[in-house]
Amino acid sequence: MNQSKLACGIMSGTSLDGIDVVIATISGTGLTTKIEMIAGKTFDYPPMLLEKVKLAVTDQLTVKDVSSLHFELGRLYASCVISLCKELKLSPSSLNFIASHGQTVYHQSKIEDTRLPSTLQLGSGSVIAGLTETTVVSDFRIADMIQGGQGAPLVPYVDYLLLSSSDKSRIAQNIGGISNITYLPKTKNEHDVYAFDTGPGNMMINYAMEKLYNKPYDDCGQIAKKGQLILPLYDEIMQHPFVHQMPPKSCGREQFGGAYTQTLMTKYKNHAPEDIIHTLTVATASTMISNIKQFILNKHEIDELIISGGGVHNQFLMNFIQKSLPDIKVLSSDDVGLSSDYKEALAFIVLGNQTLFQQTANLPSATGAKKHVVLGTVSYFT
Amino acid sequence: MNQSKLACGIMSGTSLDGIDVVIATISGTGLTTKIEMIAGKTFDYPPMLLEKVKLAVTDQLTVKDVSSLHFELGRLYASCVISLCKELKLSPSSLNFIASHGQTVYHQSKIEDTRLPSTLQLGSGSVIAGLTETTVVSDFRIADMIQGGQGAPLVPYVDYLLLSSSDKSRIAQNIGGISNITYLPKTKNEHDVYAFDTGPGNMMINYAMEKLYNKPYDDCGQIAKKGQLILPLYDEIMQHPFVHQMPPKSCGREQFGGAYTQTLMTKYKNHAPEDIIHTLTVATASTMISNIKQFILNKHEIDELIISGGGVHNQFLMNFIQKSLPDIKVLSSDDVGLSSDYKEALAFIVLGNQTLFQQTANLPSATGAKKHVVLGTVSYFT
Repeated sequence: MNQSKLACGIMSGTSLDGIDVVIATISGTGLTTKIEMIAGKTFDYPPMLLEKVKLAVTDQLTVKDVSSLHFELGRLYASCVISLCKELKLSPSSLNFIASHGQTVYHQSKIEDTRLPSTLQLGSGSVIAGLTETTVVSDFRIADMIQGGQGAPLVPYVDYLLLSSSDKSRIAQNIGGISNITYLPKTKNEHDVYAFDTGPGNMMINYAMEKLYNKPYDDCGQIAKKGQLILPLYDEIMQHPFVHQMPPKSCGREQFGGAYTQTLMTKYKNHAPEDIIHTLTVATASTMISNIKQFILNKHEIDELIISGGGVHNQFLMNFIQKSLPDIKVLSSDDVGLSSDYKEALAFIVLGNQTLFQQTANLPSATGAKKHVVLGTVSYFT
Repeated sequence: MNQSKLACGIMSGTSLDGIDVVIATISGTGLTTKIEMIAGKTFDYPPMLLEKVKLAVTDQLTVKDVSSLHFELGRLYASCVISLCKELKLSPSSLNFIASHGQTVYHQSKIEDTRLPSTLQLGSGSVIAGLTETTVVSDFRIADMIQGGQGAPLVPYVDYLLLSSSDKSRIAQNIGGISNITYLPKTKNEHDVYAFDTGPGNMMINYAMEKLYNKPYDDCGQIAKKGQLILPLYDEIMQHPFVHQMPPKSCGREQFGGAYTQTLMTKYKNHAPEDIIHTLTVATASTMISNIKQFILNKHEIDELIISGGGVHNQFLMNFIQKSLPDIKVLSSDDVGLSSDYKEALAFIVLGNQTLFQQTANLPSATGAKKHVVLGTVSYFT
């Protein structure tokens, strides 16, 4: 169990801004887990495939195309792994395992019309296994959902394993398309850990950047920095019911995606583009701060806020958060030895490692599940 | 490896005529595999769910419904397992594992328009695992397809393990919706084994029975027995290119489903219903005989033909086959100790057992794959 293994993690988030692939060594399990990153790379979705994925997430594909896309994405993920291995002069089959999140094309933890709660990640683990000649763990969200959980968030368990400190109480925050936070008490008692989504991460900002500037994101927050606050727009976002909903809670494109952002942008279309970006950034940061204050600082003292994900590169956003929480030290996860860019991909290596040892890896306090369960399915290649 | 395990197999075929669930003990792996059936039961699809499945197989469901159906079928399969266990006064969690084929809603081993070859079985293994609290093996077809195989047929490998005899050269035939045969030489050399689909099994007969008699099948072949041959209809079916295509080959609803059968029925609608059923039955049997003669008896001597699947109960069909092959002893698999009704569900237990031992279980000579690979994905429950 303590033998070091070579593993690969693949994460492609709901923001569709690329496929993060990371290679690392991992040893131990649970709280003894040690992971060290060797290399990481972000691959773009090929345009044709991106179009298909967009059709999938907007419920515009039927069975045959879903089936094909499951294989096409599996093939794409495998090619990304093979490409990164080639750069490192590694044979993919020398990896002990690959953990792949897959592309979520549907995730609903409540009954909707005639549909049961369900989640669907495309990019078949068996396809990846066959092409890389390596055992693959995938489909991490289902098991938790069957125990009554939301199937999300899953990274908080990894935050608990890797970022808990016995000296300091921490919050781990990931700012991807959406933002989620995990409370990590210095007691290191799993039962005291909890986690939830705070609302938008980069999702609204990136959507608006694409529409207003034809750019995928606001580099370093330069545009946000130039703009001024549109108070009614700010207020409208801050009044979104999700911001004030009690945890556990999770959100996604359904709440803060293109449809929502577009409605707001149309309503405030007479304002300067940089003011829109500024306000979306301030409001995004404020939903985070509001959640931290309402649902963590009301009960606990916090020493450090450790941020990962693309949001780390938005200097304006980072400064805003630090200014709003003067008593807390705001760090990027790089500062504590965990790549902020590849944290989620690394996290799935940790989760996949748990699966292969048949050890549980959900955090019921984060997902709402009734039980600890083993997550994921294993496609063996031997 | 030789310890006996309690396992459950779930098979729901393309004919949608029910869910076969079987409980058995299994020991060994590969050629040392021993399986003994304890109980089996066929469950009907609940009407609402059957409707959804029919929409799926006719490519009329979109992403959200596919995702939900994956969970709904998983829940249904789990409830079938739990129900059979209850009858046996067994706790489902006392099963060592469950092997579930899932419901195929798409299977295409060639490129079609912009789609890659792919296969999609719904009824999530992780859903079944969570509800039965038992480790589940599922998604058996993908790995073979990634090695260039057709992902089908998979049962021939099990035929090879369980029905090969060193005294007699045999053909194992399964007559489900479609019919497939496996050549099992008495050399017991895997490289000499080959298998392929011969064409329709019960698919055309059952479709016509439903339309003409409002019954799901021709009980014991009584209607076929009463009718007379419509020679042009017979000839038309026998001229279907699939009948004469060289193995390896596989077929399904695409070739011999409702669309094809309906066209023929419309063309011959002025004939008596029993003549239609008689002719479909004779033609179905003749496609089998023709394939056996063209692609097996041309090269090999055969002692026994061992038939399993629903076709065994069609006495008219069975008699026709025996009369057409006077030099071969035609048996049902029950005669050699393997339930003809539950053979496919039992076969998936054998395949799942291979998966759990990380042993390969495809037969490249049957599927066309370039390599032997481990099949399936494992959803652990511990």
